[in-house]
Amino acid sequence: MAKVLAALIPEPGAAVEVRELPEPELEPDSALLEVELSEVCGTDVYLQEGRLTGVPYPLIPGHVSVGRLGKIRGRLPDISGRPFKEGERVTFLDVHRTCNACWYCLVAGATTRCPQRKVYGITYGLSDGLAGGWAQKLYLRPGTRCISLEGVNSERFMAGGCALPTALHAVERAEVAIGDTALVLGSGPVGLSAVIFSLMRGALRVLCIGAPPHRLEVAMRLGAAATLDVETTDESARREWVLAQTEGRGADVTIEATGAPAAVVEAMRYTRDAGCVLIVGQYTDHGPATFNPHLDLNRKHLDVRGCWGSDFSHFYRGVQLMRDPTRSEPWSHLRLARYDLSRANEALADVASGRAIKALITPQA
Amino acid sequence: MAKVLAALIPEPGAAVEVRELPEPELEPDSALLEVELSEVCGTDVYLQEGRLTGVPYPLIPGHVSVGRLGKIRGRLPDISGRPFKEGERVTFLDVHRTCNACWYCLVAGATTRCPQRKVYGITYGLSDGLAGGWAQKLYLRPGTRCISLEGVNSERFMAGGCALPTALHAVERAEVAIGDTALVLGSGPVGLSAVIFSLMRGALRVLCIGAPPHRLEVAMRLGAAATLDVETTDESARREWVLAQTEGRGADVTIEATGAPAAVVEAMRYTRDAGCVLIVGQYTDHGPATFNPHLDLNRKHLDVRGCWGSDFSHFYRGVQLMRDPTRSEPWSHLRLARYDLSRANEALADVASGRAIKALITPQA
Amino acid sequence: MAKVLAALIPEPGAAVEVRELPEPELEPDSALLEVELSEVCGTDVYLQEGRLTGVPYPLIPGHVSVGRLGKIRGRLPDISGRPFKEGERVTFLDVHRTCNACWYCLVAGATTRCPQRKVYGITYGLSDGLAGGWAQKLYLRPGTRCISLEGVNSERFMAGGCALPTALHAVERAEVAIGDTALVLGSGPVGLSAVIFSLMRGALRVLCIGAPPHRLEVAMRLGAAATLDVETTDESARREWVLAQTEGRGADVTIEATGAPAAVVEAMRYTRDAGCVLIVGQYTDHGPATFNPHLDLNRKHLDVRGCWGSDFSHFYRGVQLMRDPTRSEPWSHLRLARYDLSRANEALADVASGRAIKALITPQA
Amino acid sequence: MAKVLAALIPEPGAAVEVRELPEPELEPDSALLEVELSEVCGTDVYLQEGRLTGVPYPLIPGHVSVGRLGKIRGRLPDISGRPFKEGERVTFLDVHRTCNACWYCLVAGATTRCPQRKVYGITYGLSDGLAGGWAQKLYLRPGTRCISLEGVNSERFMAGGCALPTALHAVERAEVAIGDTALVLGSGPVGLSAVIFSLMRGALRVLCIGAPPHRLEVAMRLGAAATLDVETTDESARREWVLAQTEGRGADVTIEATGAPAAVVEAMRYTRDAGCVLIVGQYTDHGPATFNPHLDLNRKHLDVRGCWGSDFSHFYRGVQLMRDPTRSEPWSHLRLARYDLSRANEALADVASGRAIKALITPQA
Repeated sequence: MAKVLAALIPEPGAAVEVRELPEPELEPDSALLEVELSEVCGTDVYLQEGRLTGVPYPLIPGHVSVGRLGKIRGRLPDISGRPFKEGERVTFLDVHRTCNACWYCLVAGATTRCPQRKVYGITYGLSDGLAGGWAQKLYLRPGTRCISLEGVNSERFMAGGCALPTALHAVERAEVAIGDTALVLGSGPVGLSAVIFSLMRGALRVLCIGAPPHRLEVAMRLGAAATLDVETTDESARREWVLAQTEGRGADVTIEATGAPAAVVEAMRYTRDAGCVLIVGQYTDHGPATFNPHLDLNRKHLDVRGCWGSDFSHFYRGVQLMRDPTRSEPWSHLRLARYDLSRANEALADVASGRAIKALITPQA
Repeated sequence: MAKVLAALIPEPGAAVEVRELPEPELEPDSALLEVELSEVCGTDVYLQEGRLTGVPYPLIPGHVSVGRLGKIRGRLPDISGRPFKEGERVTFLDVHRTCNACWYCLVAGATTRCPQRKVYGITYGLSDGLAGGWAQKLYLRPGTRCISLEGVNSERFMAGGCALPTALHAVERAEVAIGDTALVLGSGPVGLSAVIFSLMRGALRVLCIGAPPHRLEVAMRLGAAATLDVETTDESARREWVLAQTEGRGADVTIEATGAPAAVVEAMRYTRDAGCVLIVGQYTDHGPATFNPHLDLNRKHLDVRGCWGSDFSHFYRGVQLMRDPTRSEPWSHLRLARYDLSRANEALADVASGRAIKALITPQA
Repeated sequence: MAKVLAALIPEPGAAVEVRELPEPELEPDSALLEVELSEVCGTDVYLQEGRLTGVPYPLIPGHVSVGRLGKIRGRLPDISGRPFKEGERVTFLDVHRTCNACWYCLVAGATTRCPQRKVYGITYGLSDGLAGGWAQKLYLRPGTRCISLEGVNSERFMAGGCALPTALHAVERAEVAIGDTALVLGSGPVGLSAVIFSLMRGALRVLCIGAPPHRLEVAMRLGAAATLDVETTDESARREWVLAQTEGRGADVTIEATGAPAAVVEAMRYTRDAGCVLIVGQYTDHGPATFNPHLDLNRKHLDVRGCWGSDFSHFYRGVQLMRDPTRSEPWSHLRLARYDLSRANEALADVASGRAIKALITPQA
Repeated sequence: MAKVLAALIPEPGAAVEVRELPEPELEPDSALLEVELSEVCGTDVYLQEGRLTGVPYPLIPGHVSVGRLGKIRGRLPDISGRPFKEGERVTFLDVHRTCNACWYCLVAGATTRCPQRKVYGITYGLSDGLAGGWAQKLYLRPGTRCISLEGVNSERFMAGGCALPTALHAVERAEVAIGDTALVLGSGPVGLSAVIFSLMRGALRVLCIGAPPHRLEVAMRLGAAATLDVETTDESARREWVLAQTEGRGADVTIEATGAPAAVVEAMRYTRDAGCVLIVGQYTDHGPATFNPHLDLNRKHLDVRGCWGSDFSHFYRGVQLMRDPTRSEPWSHLRLARYDLSRANEALADVASGRAIKALITPQA
């Protein structure tokens, strides 16, 4: 039986280990993906640290991935009904099993809150099989939604990675409008993609507060009008800076993509009255925040929107944008760092420290 | 020169006093209203206690009022252009001078955040003239928007009072939908009107958490499906109660109308994932609240909307509803307590204690 | 083998015939419904007349139906995951096989335009089995979404029938607002349910133009403010009537539910500038209509929305409303006419002539 | 008394004449603009031909204009309250006197349908004074909203001209989304600006059907993905072309900016199911159009939106975009043709024939 090398997190807090695993039998309408690139994102750092609940350790991390279809058994159609062929380069929506049968899916239309929802590399563990991208092969279960990457530069797509649909969802839900001043808090992958998408929706000026400086330089190359280092300023100085950039009013829209609870409150304070605050940086529990409901919310007539996950629509459109040289160009400015399976711990460390903007695992290397 | 009796708050924390004031000369396009009824609302309690900033003491309180047009000088047209006549019974939008010339009015379309905005009985003080309803006569400045009360029962309209446009704005902004379960936190005038409006927009079930018991009984008479006393329960018991009423999910929409900062956070916790929380109870600074951005907001994919003030559209439609016996019927269940000018302090005490649901000043009595 | 009586349309234009059909074997996760009531709607008249394309004759009509679950094989869960039991009274969404895999389902979010979509009694024919409600038993294929009718009055629910989700979808998409004047064109089942739902969303006045007079009387009992007979007036008189009811402006929202192409243009002309026109009466091709794009649309800044089908959300909420005595009360005013299988042709004739507001087939009679 | 040269249309169908007019006295809070550039748009052609109703001939055409403030009498503040100074270069919103007091302004929020609204150069005639831009001086009445053009290239701004706010309004109301395929019908100034704004809101591909070829070449330079000549194709060929560009579905959003009634129906047919059609090309009555309400609208679940005029928000944001070299760059591709006052008839002929994309009157030349 063929063997597959995979990097896995044995248990919360433990270092990543490379193991040899058996290649699975394919059930009907499933396939095997030969993984070329799989990302390392902030969530993977939290997975290793054991900060997420409901994770079935041991698990193979790696949610958004790119590869070639090795074997296919049965039907594996694309969204137009065309069957994929073995050898095609594809990516797939990491969210699996959104049920289309529960109250959240069918009545509320809130599919990202479907209780049946599973995510490759996060809530599928090793006991579910080769269900993460940090492996030479990944098992695509029946119902997994693949998208052809024909005509797409894999590196550029992975520079977006899981931040691509996440930030697209956030910027759309924030309803950035033509002529707006958008403020992005955070300069990690989601923040930088939010800068790109805010401009793509017609923001006239995009401001970015983040760190470290090399990421802020990237934000400028992406088209940000001005940036500020969060590590060398306090809230009061940051607020003054935003007001100075916005004729004293605050940003029309603020997108929080930081991970810091206090940034949620700062986002409210940096936004103009009757503006919109979009919270997309609180995917992990980092503790509480304190605000003044009168001053920070009610009197400002603010709209503060949480944004959880993304659905196929965001992912699909993200891939389509990547087919277009002009639309995808900004992502070429996000430097990629590559790591083979044996260097996965190093990749996690570089992501945790902010040294790498986007780290990729290359399982075939 | 004719004299006018008025009740006024001399300074923050001081008791209301009745004074005799001169009747003003009318400038062009102004009028004098002979006040019949003027309300006493929670804001008036805060005005007397000195809890609002930017109030020009001394001032005559009383924002939403009803009366007859005494003298009119020049043009005073209604919204269709018809000139009002002396002797007509009218009410008027207490918000004055929304400028229609600033960035908030013309670009953001956020007229309730217009910096030029003034409110009779709140931000117009005695130095601005007879600018509050707790007086025999009120001076309607040029540009004040009056609405005829022909065919409207004044008592029923005043049972809504300023809560009528406030709650209409809140329930519309919350986008209550047909079939929803709406939860209203607070059973004061705004909360009770929010119960009515939630049902009017098609909520299948409206829950109300408030106090004291006699107000919850009113909520039931207005059509609430169930109520809970906030004073005899803790947050955990309240949350269990809401979940038990909502198949374990939480309310589709929660409208916070309490004045308590902690209620803002509870509102998030009692609302289902991907639901909407509307904050309309934080018109005064009652201090901070602490929440968990991950658990209470981002992961829940919530939409938390502050709601400040109301505009002519809310006020106008509120009055139109009052012309209709069926639509206005619920407000007949809100018991009115009447006080002449000399009993204004008693009225404030009864509102502060929750004894009166809706207190009215009757300046001609 | 057990036998099942069913009424079917052999071919376009042919009369309905009753036939004896074999009871099918159940495949896994399917069930057999013992039909108690199945409706006869305008679409059934068109099916018999052969006016719809893509209908696989012969077919058993009857889309929205009520009955008891006879046999169940395998899993048949409700929306909360609870398995149905044999003997339970249920209805089911007549739309089947919305694929949740195509571009319309997953990217556009337009599930009612999914090309895979099939409808019991309309696009499922006899070759698909017992797939219509005009039969003693109906075969519930795997994936059919059932809803318990426990606590629901079947007659009242069927008084709504397929018009219930259709009109709910229409009124929500039309965004009827509190205080609006809504105009409903048509007084058939969809029109009458649109009257009910417009009031349920807070319309202050609902006008209805339709025929014959006995249906307009029902509209008044449902709460319409005024009605007009379309058969004794011309367009000019109708327009004058609407303007007279709306201070010369036209309706805020008009819902067209007639089937007549010219009514679409009239709907535009009876609606105020910047209002909304909702087209839900053109489910069959009745030919062209002519309008003036400058006068009727562009200069009026109108929003004209087609509305096709409904999804599980509309159907589910429609059933929930029926659990509530107050919310469902209006439908008790829609008189039901019952016909056993042998009188199906009579039922069609009574629906075609407008004699019956809502005709029901009672297959067990 | 000083004299002012102006070009005016004496009566419907008559050629433009240059006349010498007296310079007016300034009433309080008014100003005199020394016009540098004033546009010639399609509406001006219709004005000369006498195709618009309610035009008070004789009139001086020219609505969107640029110039220097000559004299100012009294207060003339910008949107932030800063008073303009004599000598400043400005433009102004050609829509004047939106009343902020009527039902359309205050209840419907539909300010572009305010009955009091007047437009310089269209509904203000010579009897209203120097109220059009085809004159050396234009009288800015009290309440006219000016915007500073400091930092704005006048030519680039005028390349947008009145199409700038019109197309911005249209594209926003059409809700073009990131990743969409937008189809623009018409390649005149509004169509070309709609191409630009559709891309600015994130459309992945913009298609344009128009004429003549030199305008389609401009559309390509603006970023259109493909264009088609309307004059060498029939509806069937055009439909095939659109379907071939959109995987057989039709455009997500179609913006009609042609002036031809039939284009409104074509727009519906070229749009995908559940898509949006925006009608902005029917500002003049060009007669009727015939469509099939079942096939073209209801079954397609389309949303067809008329779009009339624009408000200060669109105009203001249009000017702000022009301050930005990147955002305004596309308009530099619209070639300008200049005409002094004596050549106004030639300018009209060039606009009517489509020879000039954007013709400008230079009154000081």
